[in-house]
Amino acid sequence: MTKQSRGAEGSRDRRAQPRSPDPHWRTALTAIEPNKILIRGYPVDELMGRLDFGEAVYLLLRGELPSPSIGKLMGAVLVSSLDHGVTPPSTLASRNVATTGTSLQACVAAGILGFGPYHGGDIESCMRFLDTGLGLVRNGMTYEEAAHEVVEAYLEAPPPGFGHRIHTQDPRTARLFQMAHELELDGEHIRMIGSVERVLNRRHGNDGTQRIPINVDGAIAAVCADLGFDPAQGNALFIISRVTGLVGHALEEQSRQTPMRQIDPKDLIYDGPADRRLPETRK
Amino acid sequence: MTKQSRGAEGSRDRRAQPRSPDPHWRTALTAIEPNKILIRGYPVDELMGRLDFGEAVYLLLRGELPSPSIGKLMGAVLVSSLDHGVTPPSTLASRNVATTGTSLQACVAAGILGFGPYHGGDIESCMRFLDTGLGLVRNGMTYEEAAHEVVEAYLEAPPPGFGHRIHTQDPRTARLFQMAHELELDGEHIRMIGSVERVLNRRHGNDGTQRIPINVDGAIAAVCADLGFDPAQGNALFIISRVTGLVGHALEEQSRQTPMRQIDPKDLIYDGPADRRLPETRK
Amino acid sequence: MTKQSRGAEGSRDRRAQPRSPDPHWRTALTAIEPNKILIRGYPVDELMGRLDFGEAVYLLLRGELPSPSIGKLMGAVLVSSLDHGVTPPSTLASRNVATTGTSLQACVAAGILGFGPYHGGDIESCMRFLDTGLGLVRNGMTYEEAAHEVVEAYLEAPPPGFGHRIHTQDPRTARLFQMAHELELDGEHIRMIGSVERVLNRRHGNDGTQRIPINVDGAIAAVCADLGFDPAQGNALFIISRVTGLVGHALEEQSRQTPMRQIDPKDLIYDGPADRRLPETRK
Amino acid sequence: MTKQSRGAEGSRDRRAQPRSPDPHWRTALTAIEPNKILIRGYPVDELMGRLDFGEAVYLLLRGELPSPSIGKLMGAVLVSSLDHGVTPPSTLASRNVATTGTSLQACVAAGILGFGPYHGGDIESCMRFLDTGLGLVRNGMTYEEAAHEVVEAYLEAPPPGFGHRIHTQDPRTARLFQMAHELELDGEHIRMIGSVERVLNRRHGNDGTQRIPINVDGAIAAVCADLGFDPAQGNALFIISRVTGLVGHALEEQSRQTPMRQIDPKDLIYDGPADRRLPETRK
Repeated sequence: MTKQSRGAEGSRDRRAQPRSPDPHWRTALTAIEPNKILIRGYPVDELMGRLDFGEAVYLLLRGELPSPSIGKLMGAVLVSSLDHGVTPPSTLASRNVATTGTSLQACVAAGILGFGPYHGGDIESCMRFLDTGLGLVRNGMTYEEAAHEVVEAYLEAPPPGFGHRIHTQDPRTARLFQMAHELELDGEHIRMIGSVERVLNRRHGNDGTQRIPINVDGAIAAVCADLGFDPAQGNALFIISRVTGLVGHALEEQSRQTPMRQIDPKDLIYDGPADRRLPETRK
Repeated sequence: MTKQSRGAEGSRDRRAQPRSPDPHWRTALTAIEPNKILIRGYPVDELMGRLDFGEAVYLLLRGELPSPSIGKLMGAVLVSSLDHGVTPPSTLASRNVATTGTSLQACVAAGILGFGPYHGGDIESCMRFLDTGLGLVRNGMTYEEAAHEVVEAYLEAPPPGFGHRIHTQDPRTARLFQMAHELELDGEHIRMIGSVERVLNRRHGNDGTQRIPINVDGAIAAVCADLGFDPAQGNALFIISRVTGLVGHALEEQSRQTPMRQIDPKDLIYDGPADRRLPETRK
Repeated sequence: MTKQSRGAEGSRDRRAQPRSPDPHWRTALTAIEPNKILIRGYPVDELMGRLDFGEAVYLLLRGELPSPSIGKLMGAVLVSSLDHGVTPPSTLASRNVATTGTSLQACVAAGILGFGPYHGGDIESCMRFLDTGLGLVRNGMTYEEAAHEVVEAYLEAPPPGFGHRIHTQDPRTARLFQMAHELELDGEHIRMIGSVERVLNRRHGNDGTQRIPINVDGAIAAVCADLGFDPAQGNALFIISRVTGLVGHALEEQSRQTPMRQIDPKDLIYDGPADRRLPETRK
Repeated sequence: MTKQSRGAEGSRDRRAQPRSPDPHWRTALTAIEPNKILIRGYPVDELMGRLDFGEAVYLLLRGELPSPSIGKLMGAVLVSSLDHGVTPPSTLASRNVATTGTSLQACVAAGILGFGPYHGGDIESCMRFLDTGLGLVRNGMTYEEAAHEVVEAYLEAPPPGFGHRIHTQDPRTARLFQMAHELELDGEHIRMIGSVERVLNRRHGNDGTQRIPINVDGAIAAVCADLGFDPAQGNALFIISRVTGLVGHALEEQSRQTPMRQIDPKDLIYDGPADRRLPETRK
């Protein structure tokens, strides 16, 4: 449901509603009592050291413990979006706030506000897009027919989850699909996005234009939809993950650069470790 | 260095500085090239599925891979602060923004802005407080003498990292210290905060006032300082962790409650799963 | 253009675009040189004391000086939305952030994030709604016919700009329309919203339901559209105005209440000045 | 009181306090009843068209109507900070958020978060700095002696309210002091900042370093302190004023530039109106 339609449907309630006689409201997330914190019913101190963070995120958002395979895939999704250097405008927003000497909280909040429709907000819309295709499949179309149908609206521009400013073959996409496959967690959404990619690129192959790859938002959308996440939760995992990158850039800005500088994203030198591989023991 | 002093020391530079002739600036976090994303030198797709999120956070913020023990403790720190129900004002800020029907990003950003000095901002100040005590130890005092010295400034109020509105024995604190001990990662900061606790509560025992426990901020501060985190990074882990709770509450608000409601934190009913334990296989 | 359609249309550019060979970008707002600040070409020090704030806002957003009548109406629009007590969730978000002891900036930013689609975001959508009606008028319908047509989509809920949780006859609405009329600044948008109100309430009169008044968002939308503001600028004036209310509540929270309190919007006592009138000299 | 000391003093209350038996809290700003909105006791519809925005801001923040002179000076303070082009990092933060296609609210909130200690946050600290000097005057020093005393702490850097990255003679400063003088609203704070400027620049004249002027933050600090504003309110007027600039830049970014661009603050071309003067009728 778009903002537009929610606004219209919800507005009677919102504008004319009498105050409810029952003032109670409900939560199913976390119960707090003195010396007791229950996350979805589990004592948080029992979770500590026994769930990794990705598993705990899954528990809080979904209500139940993930299987080990799901926990592993959740972790990979979170790691995939950790940081993307200083190229995203959200990171530059954080850096511009950080240079004024303010708190880490303010820097991170400003960065999150830069996860707009053109950046980071594609996961939710890609999940809805894939669901539209799967609705057609359920009504009798083949995946390929459904893919043809849903890409029709995107003659001028790629559908959500496709194309990237920098990467033509996003390494995160391939890795996520490989892991979903190996963990036997790939389902109809991954199949659907694959069909869309084939249809799209047959079209592009024919008219000589550039190949349009599935980007990392598309891969996360398909993987998480197959894990049963709701589209409304789609952007959640990206936010949770990328906050770490925003923290890293804000701290680096305040420790390495002079305050109140004018930040030009092009005049950057990377001076971190050179390309290296994980030690064999970590593979 | 406080904001105040930074302001004063930094201000000559800031107000009168000529534009630097060298426009370059530097980052050591992440290198981006077409089809290549290197986090601290490691290809992100190689990290996916091989590091859990806590380990990846450590890598990004510290620059090197954590040992397995450190990775495990990092995970526990992140899980410890995942959510604290609707009692924190930051969560209520997120809920109040969510009830207006806006984006998840806006809800989360507003919540982060509520991690103020009285809430969530104690980790950094507790790390500095413990470092003050350890400075005295390095100059020849015993831990107990140093603890006596540093609590002097806190006759009216507990030092940072002590006391909680709700918990007198925070279950997260005990668990973090136990894990640090078992993983052989406890060091001088944990020893220092223990000395402070003993000194504080001997004082309180004598005059009959209430016992003042180490709270979870204090425990995270001591554990992370022993892991080598800088005080400026102190609040970072709390932000990264609690963002998940903010996401959970914002999504729950928009899916379960009517828009534009007036949120009274007292009229809440918890209707999630009852108290339960991890299955034996997860322990 | 909705976010959705912008996303689709914009996405080819965004995802596949090569870096532009011309790095320059353009602004027409403010020129800065040493010891010189030109707002839309005028030296800011010449504007100080000669334009009131409403006139200066108009100049910055529209590019030219307002006539005295327009300046007066701009001022009234800005004063109309100054504050609405603690009833709006945006104000409660600011208060919840303020109770954590953080900066005024953080409190205000959190409040602005609570100007969601259900609150404060109606001005833009009402401007677009009225433009839809006026499009029909331009194609030959009478205002009444057009009003009938456009309210069709809002059988379940009032259109944007109509209805209020608290006020059945919003005093700000009447005053804005009266001023626009007296200053001879009322045009087709005010006429259109009047037609919609009549059509709506004839419908509601017949079936015995509650009268649905034009709310202050609707009045601002109609008045500003008649002044030539673009719908994309619609929410701007509300934001600029209400920031003052957010500032007032954040400062009052931090000076009058204890930190870290749990804020229940219902348990409030107003202890300010009693109902009073402007002195004759100010009328 | 600094954050640090508030934290310490407030922390006993905050951490151990029992829930208050009296749940009521108080506000003196705005009373809301059906069809009635009283700002500090005055019906808002009576204020509309009779107070300009600067006067209304004064009423809300201070509780009483300003005199016409004070109203005029308030207006000049608000106009002075309206916009400063794209040079401030706060504006660049707003622009970076705007390029992601998100809401005006998110763009403005991100910009406000960039009013850090090095930018926009100087007004409050300058007010405290001047109060320190005036405390010495009240204890018997001359203004010049007090100025000597208070600048001692700022050998390395100018005190708050002095120096600017771009302007050596800020035109806004001169205009504000001139208006305060002509309106007979200049008092001890303006006198104090003048003494400090003389002492500072005698020092700088002697050792051949650059003259350090009072900047616009210092001028606003002195003027507003003489109007009786509290230091805690110091940054409020800057926030209220500059929000307009943030709105202007966010709207311009989204209407004139391509989405997801990389914003380099140096590659900017101003293409607005050339230098022009107010018509004689507006002077």
